[in-house]
Amino acid sequence: MSYKSDIEIAREANKKPIQEIGDKLGIPTEHLLPYGHDKAKVSQEYINSVQGNENGKLVLVTAINPTPAGEGKTTTTVGLGDGLNRIGKKAMICIREASLGPNFGMKGGAAGGGYAQVVPMEEMNLHFTGDFHAITSAHSLLSAMLDNHIYWGNEQEIDVRRVQWRRVVDMNDRALRQITASLGGVSNGFPREAGFDITVASEVMAILCLASNLKDLEKRLGDMIVAYRRDRSPVFCRDIKAEGAMTVLLKDAMQPNLVQTLENNPAFVHGGPFANIAHGCNSVIATTTALKISDYVVTEAGFGADLGAEKFMNIKCRKAGLAPSAVVLVATVRAMKMNGGVAKADLGQENVDAVTAGCPNLGRHIENIKSFGVPVVVAINHFVTDTDAEVQAVKDYVAGHGTEAVVSQHWEFGSKGSENLANKVVEIVEGGTANFAPIYPDDMSLFDKVETIAKRIYRADEVLADKKIRDQLKLWEEQGYGNLPVCMAKTQYSFSTDPSLRGAPTGHSVPVREVRLSAGAGFVVVVCGEIMTMPGLPRTPAAETIHLNDGGQIEGLF
Amino acid sequence: MSYKSDIEIAREANKKPIQEIGDKLGIPTEHLLPYGHDKAKVSQEYINSVQGNENGKLVLVTAINPTPAGEGKTTTTVGLGDGLNRIGKKAMICIREASLGPNFGMKGGAAGGGYAQVVPMEEMNLHFTGDFHAITSAHSLLSAMLDNHIYWGNEQEIDVRRVQWRRVVDMNDRALRQITASLGGVSNGFPREAGFDITVASEVMAILCLASNLKDLEKRLGDMIVAYRRDRSPVFCRDIKAEGAMTVLLKDAMQPNLVQTLENNPAFVHGGPFANIAHGCNSVIATTTALKISDYVVTEAGFGADLGAEKFMNIKCRKAGLAPSAVVLVATVRAMKMNGGVAKADLGQENVDAVTAGCPNLGRHIENIKSFGVPVVVAINHFVTDTDAEVQAVKDYVAGHGTEAVVSQHWEFGSKGSENLANKVVEIVEGGTANFAPIYPDDMSLFDKVETIAKRIYRADEVLADKKIRDQLKLWEEQGYGNLPVCMAKTQYSFSTDPSLRGAPTGHSVPVREVRLSAGAGFVVVVCGEIMTMPGLPRTPAAETIHLNDGGQIEGLF
Repeated sequence: MSYKSDIEIAREANKKPIQEIGDKLGIPTEHLLPYGHDKAKVSQEYINSVQGNENGKLVLVTAINPTPAGEGKTTTTVGLGDGLNRIGKKAMICIREASLGPNFGMKGGAAGGGYAQVVPMEEMNLHFTGDFHAITSAHSLLSAMLDNHIYWGNEQEIDVRRVQWRRVVDMNDRALRQITASLGGVSNGFPREAGFDITVASEVMAILCLASNLKDLEKRLGDMIVAYRRDRSPVFCRDIKAEGAMTVLLKDAMQPNLVQTLENNPAFVHGGPFANIAHGCNSVIATTTALKISDYVVTEAGFGADLGAEKFMNIKCRKAGLAPSAVVLVATVRAMKMNGGVAKADLGQENVDAVTAGCPNLGRHIENIKSFGVPVVVAINHFVTDTDAEVQAVKDYVAGHGTEAVVSQHWEFGSKGSENLANKVVEIVEGGTANFAPIYPDDMSLFDKVETIAKRIYRADEVLADKKIRDQLKLWEEQGYGNLPVCMAKTQYSFSTDPSLRGAPTGHSVPVREVRLSAGAGFVVVVCGEIMTMPGLPRTPAAETIHLNDGGQIEGLF
Repeated sequence: MSYKSDIEIAREANKKPIQEIGDKLGIPTEHLLPYGHDKAKVSQEYINSVQGNENGKLVLVTAINPTPAGEGKTTTTVGLGDGLNRIGKKAMICIREASLGPNFGMKGGAAGGGYAQVVPMEEMNLHFTGDFHAITSAHSLLSAMLDNHIYWGNEQEIDVRRVQWRRVVDMNDRALRQITASLGGVSNGFPREAGFDITVASEVMAILCLASNLKDLEKRLGDMIVAYRRDRSPVFCRDIKAEGAMTVLLKDAMQPNLVQTLENNPAFVHGGPFANIAHGCNSVIATTTALKISDYVVTEAGFGADLGAEKFMNIKCRKAGLAPSAVVLVATVRAMKMNGGVAKADLGQENVDAVTAGCPNLGRHIENIKSFGVPVVVAINHFVTDTDAEVQAVKDYVAGHGTEAVVSQHWEFGSKGSENLANKVVEIVEGGTANFAPIYPDDMSLFDKVETIAKRIYRADEVLADKKIRDQLKLWEEQGYGNLPVCMAKTQYSFSTDPSLRGAPTGHSVPVREVRLSAGAGFVVVVCGEIMTMPGLPRTPAAETIHLNDGGQIEGLF
């Protein structure tokens, strides 16, 4: 039996006009700002108008540590949303937007897969509704204003050696990682070292995704630290007077984007911060709006649960006042097998022992999620090659951890395949056992917050940080930033900082290389390992074969 | 009597849903891709479907050399379009899109003014439908692929000292004019000098505006020269294999944007190449499409007629097979007075002698336009302070040149004020006296083309160019580029290359500083004087006061 590719399925989608999707949610046409016939932004006025509504229930989809076998977190998010709609719940999904640049390096990512996808797939992997371009523009405006400020006399007495604000572009352009700018003489300014990150790494992106409204957005932008003076005092974005104009550039980008699943159910696709140096969740405004206009909101967080769910809970939920009612932890038989030591080429062969051997990674995540006070169900994202015995091995393991594992076949059958998972989620949510709390309080010291995560989530023995880093954290505490949550940047492939250490390691150390203050976003980034904020293109970039065919269809992007 | 500001008038506009504007043109809803409720792109399928229609009549609006008094070229374009609709003609206007970056330096430009404007004004000065962002992305992709090619082994043997392709950003960022890129060691590539221009200066912009369809776009992108080898042979964009993916990024940007005037008449606002290093006209696809779906198309070209009309005729019309039926030359009494030596502060006082003394600039442009075989009418864009005697002085002067000057009061009264001008234009067009031809043939040598323009349009005695420049032109002729038109880049303030030389100078010299080959756009740029392709921000940028007020309206942008 042969299967259709994601793009083939997406192109065959029976899309409804986006107004009809808005109708389902009760959004009047005048409050739905269309971008073509299949995408729309929801107006700020409408968002304001629903603030009095009761909140629906929030469900987080997270996953085991990713393996090359794939786990299908977004696919399951989409499948669960469709499943909930199928069993009569008014449900929405909230996922992130894709970054444009990386799609020209490796082939682009679908939003979901199989019969659990969000469409229009191609546009979501290209310009979509222009949100990321707006973020690039707002970021670039501050960059230009900062150097312009220095050029015209540097009234703020910025130390040009201590400019923190890097530039951004939404393209994989390694040549811009490190540059010398303002060369060429008097009229071009004062030469200094500078560099570019990719747009999703911009603090503006993190802020857009955490701001509750435009006023809050403007305040947070103003709070960003762009440089330091010789006396080490911070220079804020508001000292450069850029936050008002940046807010103007971002006013449309702040409105959530409405699209649809293959089954014509509503989806917000909005925001996309890095999951390492930022918190890796879709926008707060999309999630909170979705909760006002639907009974169930299914969302996801970047990477595995050690990074994604932890940040979702400790940063996004804490700051936005959200409380998830349930967590769906996605696992696959194939990924368990890889964790159990099977090579990718051999994944097609039944190997129950390897599945069982790989399960401790899953078990660790189950325990961790429960430690936030949220009930969890494991979704076994079913592959057509999975055998019954393998599936049963996962179920048995999970049952041993006091949790249930449900097979979900949304990839192959859409909502018909995810009905069981949807019913289980409803049962858990209606059980009302959730009692969410972040795992550390605001007033804990910054270093203790890092230690709490390292010991309770990663199960490390210790956090290694030299005096310089500890002093920096103390200085920020003195400056009033001690109440911020910490945002861990480490490898997504392991609980530890060693990407090759699969399973459920213990006794390891977490070395902190660097700490960064994102004062506008409102977190302290703790870098543990190499973090790339400007990817490069591979030897043969996907872009070389991307083109329009004679029918006007895009080839090579997927 | 006090007058409302442009932005006040624009905000009071009684805009119709963009579908209704499309209806007027006969564009079915499914072929109108909305961006919000007041902007839309016209689908490629629809554009293809009207190719068999008869062409309407093309009218160019151009102007005298600009003075600080302002002449109102776009305002007159809009006013004439509305006037033609008022007298029962099915008319459209075609104008350029605004660049985002410069609006954050000086206050943004309206599209027109008074009661002759195109709306939505704010969005047209911000992200609009994302065309310029798409151009920036496509340009940036090639930039990244070029350095990536060098990084992975430089198979094309690019001489890194001879990379021609600069990067772009749509922001006034002088710090990026000249940089050293690829610093920081092995993983960031080979250090080399580089720099950024503003997006409107990108050859991709010029190509988008000259391409007849997506296939032509892709071919032209591939034709761009991005670097030279040590043996001076050119490396093309197609050698880097970027043109297919760039075309994918530009496919929506190629579709013309439909908006409306204050009087709900249709307007295409599409493309915006620099008027110095490029040809300064809206897109060919917008103009040719408009000609297929309306009886009259009113368009404009950048700067004064010596640059804008000359390039419109010799580049755009020649290459796109267009033939204007009439030219409207915009002048104001105030500009005549300034040309006649009056200071800006004294423009409010009647001064008939100064008006007459300033008219030779106008006269020269009349003669020049006639030399292309196109009949011309002068539009006196009326200011409320103009006296009858001053207006009469202009009329008398123009009559002495065998032409008619018509007062147009569209700024104050909308189409009621431009009815006379519209009637006059119809009379000229229906007279059928136009017999358009470019003023030089394709097969003239490149240097002779420059001389032809310098002598016949600028009335210079000579063109000064050293051996290096003449040799370069000859080399390009040998390489097969001799048949291209030339694109003059000189000051817009004078017929000469000296911006302070107003009126109608003769006997001057035109020194050529530099020549550049835009092989994809299809012209040779002849640089005569300082041309800035990356503007800087002023000491106090407009951005410092731009913000959203409590009502969510943008303040400070205009």
